Amino acid sequence: MLDVCLLGTGGMMPLPYRWLTSLMMRYNGSTMMIDCGEGTQIAVREKGWSVNPVDVICFTHYHGDHIGGLPGLLLTMGNAERREPLTLIGPAGLEKVVGALRVIAPELPFPIIYQEIRDPEQDFSVKGWNIHAFRVNHRVTCYGYSITIPRAGRFQPDRARALGLPLPAWGRLQHGQTVEIDGKIYTPDMVMGADRKGLKVTYATDTRPTSLIVKNAAAADLCILEGMYGDDALLPKAREKKHMTFSEAATIAQTADPRPAELWLTHFSPSMNRPEEYLEQTRKIFAGTIVPKDGRTKVLNFDDE
Amino acid sequence: MLDVCLLGTGGMMPLPYRWLTSLMMRYNGSTMMIDCGEGTQIAVREKGWSVNPVDVICFTHYHGDHIGGLPGLLLTMGNAERREPLTLIGPAGLEKVVGALRVIAPELPFPIIYQEIRDPEQDFSVKGWNIHAFRVNHRVTCYGYSITIPRAGRFQPDRARALGLPLPAWGRLQHGQTVEIDGKIYTPDMVMGADRKGLKVTYATDTRPTSLIVKNAAAADLCILEGMYGDDALLPKAREKKHMTFSEAATIAQTADPRPAELWLTHFSPSMNRPEEYLEQTRKIFAGTIVPKDGRTKVLNFDDE
Repeated sequence: MLDVCLLGTGGMMPLPYRWLTSLMMRYNGSTMMIDCGEGTQIAVREKGWSVNPVDVICFTHYHGDHIGGLPGLLLTMGNAERREPLTLIGPAGLEKVVGALRVIAPELPFPIIYQEIRDPEQDFSVKGWNIHAFRVNHRVTCYGYSITIPRAGRFQPDRARALGLPLPAWGRLQHGQTVEIDGKIYTPDMVMGADRKGLKVTYATDTRPTSLIVKNAAAADLCILEGMYGDDALLPKAREKKHMTFSEAATIAQTADPRPAELWLTHFSPSMNRPEEYLEQTRKIFAGTIVPKDGRTKVLNFDDE
Repeated sequence: MLDVCLLGTGGMMPLPYRWLTSLMMRYNGSTMMIDCGEGTQIAVREKGWSVNPVDVICFTHYHGDHIGGLPGLLLTMGNAERREPLTLIGPAGLEKVVGALRVIAPELPFPIIYQEIRDPEQDFSVKGWNIHAFRVNHRVTCYGYSITIPRAGRFQPDRARALGLPLPAWGRLQHGQTVEIDGKIYTPDMVMGADRKGLKVTYATDTRPTSLIVKNAAAADLCILEGMYGDDALLPKAREKKHMTFSEAATIAQTADPRPAELWLTHFSPSMNRPEEYLEQTRKIFAGTIVPKDGRTKVLNFDDE
């Protein structure tokens, strides 16, 4: 079970009743976030979740509305006597930017592990989170993320029996371990079926549309994309500032093959008071579009769970 | 008319429905603030005031809950195409700390003027604000502030007539200008009565009680002091962390000579859910105590306005 919460839906500046865009996900006892603008720790608390189990924070880029809440979050984690390491992932410059912001959070009782993205696409694995970073197209270096939870195939008792494996070996193989019996090596693939469909969440904001976003949106259970402007007339402004309109985000979802199950728009311009006004026209492009409110949550389950 | 708004009442970390402690004041077309923690710009907007006319921000010290909202505020001012200079006042290290935080707000369309406090007590005058900084006693260098709006004496037409001054000179002298007529110099004090009582607001947080706070609280129209803990049993903790209890703040107000007209407590510990529970016991020490909610506003007028 993967819990997904879009803590906020705002872009540029936090507003009363609209937190800045940030994604939080919980799976198997670990929590991760993408982006952490000013006020994000309040949004977490308002949602009733906790920042203490956060093991990983990914940053799309270092504009203030995506990282300005980090020092406060670190201080709050420190006040809670956190000891576990925190992994931060982001474009090159991560350690320098966070180091500067830590002028107001210099002493923390936990270590920070920095993982800087160097390639156009790069994979990270932290605490069970499979994180695929992919470069997008903004005014500064910016990345989107696909988070996947893989799922092994089913255990095949017939094959285990045929191999003459004793029962105690079954569980170990099922959990991915290699087993040696009488000098013979047994590997999980010998008793497991093909990998089953896992879970996938894709997140990209502060970008123009790109083919790499389309590729990453494919087959996502949930795709969260920037919708800075609902009004198509603002496309020139979106182009100039390197943001996306609702229609552009919906076109990405519609073009992806296979299409994502659901599209959430986010990073709304502060000038857009009622983004839901543009929902109907956007659903004509991609029917699975949702214009979420802050704190929208979804529980993703494996197919037969 | 001096508009005073205590934007938030929280200490340490922002909470849903409790912004971090920050004071905002408007007078004669200019706005000033003291402290700017994470979320302060949202509190301003929620209050319906604007950050754009802010000419001065004073910082008590550089713990995250007092300055973490500055980069976001600067970005928001920049997005509004501000051109006017912004003066920042704070303990030594101001330019270094703000410079580091500006890693996420590097390009601004307005200049920042840094005024670092070097002495135990120091005066600043910016845009009509008379700002008196006074050192307090915290774990790091920390200052309180007394803001005063002086008020000239009444114009004395009898004296002006006795001096044989022509009418056009009256207004200039009344507005503080020196006038020369037939080679003779006339100064405002020749036609003005003694200075009348002005307005005074004193603000001190993140400190143990000190005699300098008592001195600065004297005769204040409004005194805003830290009340980290309502429960007197937490006095040892207040001593250790260098904060104040409600009782200690009230004792300062009670000891000041003359006493401030009103005492607002602020910088409540996140662990204190209902600070108003301690109001009654605190009023036994100083009757003019108020336990404010976020956004509490007061309009201060000159005596006979």
